[in-house]
Amino acid sequence: VTVSELGERRLLARIRARLERVAPPAGLVIGIGDDAAVVTPPRGARAVLTTDAQVEGVHFDRRFSSWCDVGQRALAVNLSDLAAMGAAPRWALVSLALPGSLGVLDVDELTDGLARLAGIHQVGVVGGNLTSTAGPVVVDVMAVGEAGPRDILTRAGGRPGDTLYVSGAIGGAAAGLEMLKAGRVLSEDDPGTRAAWICVDRYRRPAPRVRLGVSTGRMRAARAAIDVSDGLADAARQLAEASGCGVEIDADALPLEPGARAWWRECGHDPVTAALAGGDDYELLLAIPPAWRGRLRHLRSRVADPPLTAIGTLTKAAAGFVLIRQGRRGPLPEGFVHWAS
Amino acid sequence: VTVSELGERRLLARIRARLERVAPPAGLVIGIGDDAAVVTPPRGARAVLTTDAQVEGVHFDRRFSSWCDVGQRALAVNLSDLAAMGAAPRWALVSLALPGSLGVLDVDELTDGLARLAGIHQVGVVGGNLTSTAGPVVVDVMAVGEAGPRDILTRAGGRPGDTLYVSGAIGGAAAGLEMLKAGRVLSEDDPGTRAAWICVDRYRRPAPRVRLGVSTGRMRAARAAIDVSDGLADAARQLAEASGCGVEIDADALPLEPGARAWWRECGHDPVTAALAGGDDYELLLAIPPAWRGRLRHLRSRVADPPLTAIGTLTKAAAGFVLIRQGRRGPLPEGFVHWAS
Repeated sequence: VTVSELGERRLLARIRARLERVAPPAGLVIGIGDDAAVVTPPRGARAVLTTDAQVEGVHFDRRFSSWCDVGQRALAVNLSDLAAMGAAPRWALVSLALPGSLGVLDVDELTDGLARLAGIHQVGVVGGNLTSTAGPVVVDVMAVGEAGPRDILTRAGGRPGDTLYVSGAIGGAAAGLEMLKAGRVLSEDDPGTRAAWICVDRYRRPAPRVRLGVSTGRMRAARAAIDVSDGLADAARQLAEASGCGVEIDADALPLEPGARAWWRECGHDPVTAALAGGDDYELLLAIPPAWRGRLRHLRSRVADPPLTAIGTLTKAAAGFVLIRQGRRGPLPEGFVHWAS
Repeated sequence: VTVSELGERRLLARIRARLERVAPPAGLVIGIGDDAAVVTPPRGARAVLTTDAQVEGVHFDRRFSSWCDVGQRALAVNLSDLAAMGAAPRWALVSLALPGSLGVLDVDELTDGLARLAGIHQVGVVGGNLTSTAGPVVVDVMAVGEAGPRDILTRAGGRPGDTLYVSGAIGGAAAGLEMLKAGRVLSEDDPGTRAAWICVDRYRRPAPRVRLGVSTGRMRAARAAIDVSDGLADAARQLAEASGCGVEIDADALPLEPGARAWWRECGHDPVTAALAGGDDYELLLAIPPAWRGRLRHLRSRVADPPLTAIGTLTKAAAGFVLIRQGRRGPLPEGFVHWAS
């Protein structure tokens, strides 16, 4: 059965039923089904607003991601943006542009993927929009989070001398996507394949660093933060620029995903360059002054997973964007941009 | 110059500069340029969240709407949803999916149209997202409004016996679109053409009934409300269904847009049926008990434009959805749905 055979009304009822299986979130007054959703913002908190889209053929490919992955990813990338601001996610809206030929079971899967991640982070999917399109599937999510007025992390707070920390491992998602494109055979039997699986999983189902972001904000453990969605090199540049700083990244300190390192070597590419430029990791990059080591220790004891790795330093703006590799200084590569020629 | 020639970063800077010409809204803490926007919700108010998309080829056609119209419309349809809840619009996010071949000047126009309407209603466009697409242009807007806890209007509050009022005139937008499709020549010289112009304008640049919606909520002058975006017949059905009622619409009382009446007659169609089924009017439909005539008078004295016209009554559910025309009772037609076969 396709979307156009089922029709808008019945499709909406179906999506709504699947989303409402998740427990209703705190502060929900009116959910799906009216002209708009109504929520009660917590007293004294700031509201943090973000939106990010998944476009078929740009952000995902039906051959490499299940619809469940697509739904989960559409929410995950938004939760990652909120985490980078130190905000706890609360509510989300989902706007779907769907071709009439799409299968209803595919929409079910997409909805379930989204609902699953919403359930994990207690996010209420309180509304949205359905429209037909003659083009690719577009899943647009808008997320609303909350943070105490003094707990908000911006990109702009860094100062020369701050150490840069990245969470988790980088380069996995980009390598995973390349493995899928290259048709690398994945079986769970040998250790090499397990490392590859992890990369593919990082691409398909990114885990937004919600707990780390919220804890960092509440503990005021970082002076600036950004999420690593368009590559670590890009994130470091953006954070440095917004903070009026330059940046030095230590290539030898980067926590490369092991499967990605192996994969890029196998392909004859430099793993460090690939990991710096590759997007979709959704880790957090934090700027923490060396003097705040007590707060950092506290943060690490509170959030043991993902680990934080020191990978560089903010410098004076005049020093520019530098990559240090085995003692040699070179320019930091650029990250992913849309419509790049 | 196309979007892909300019590139993401410069396009973003350009859009940002154009949006920031509008005065910053109340409560803005962090606007465009970080991982997310941060705002301070007013104390004690509810937050009202909505999203609505404009998809090229579905909601608009480059031949019939300027990019300025598209931008304005993308925000207008969201403000209309908020108005139908009695909520004052405060902030908006804009998510654009653009093909690389689109002209940068077109994006400028789109942005300016959106910024213009945002300025009129003091809405802050505080963030958004840019992505490339291989398909049609998609403009997805998410709007956040506010309303006092007791001022919220839902679809579900109506009761049998309530009178239904519609704002302004209906049928204009659908007729205007048909005129554009048929290539009707529009000049400002003769009166017939002026009436046609009004219809085209209603289609291209819908004016959301923000003041009416907010005043109705604050004065508690209606028991239920909905916006007429998919046709009056659809809105009446939806409001009645959500309220657990039936509905009777008096066809002879409908405030048809004069140019639309003339156009449909010219085409050999029934103007009443066309106006009931035609979408895109973005008027409000209110359910007001006869006993609340004092509040209604007060509302009308406060918001003289658009006028409110009584067009029917909520009935018991068992009575169904009825259209009364010159004394005869018949079924109420359906409205627009996506993927209708």
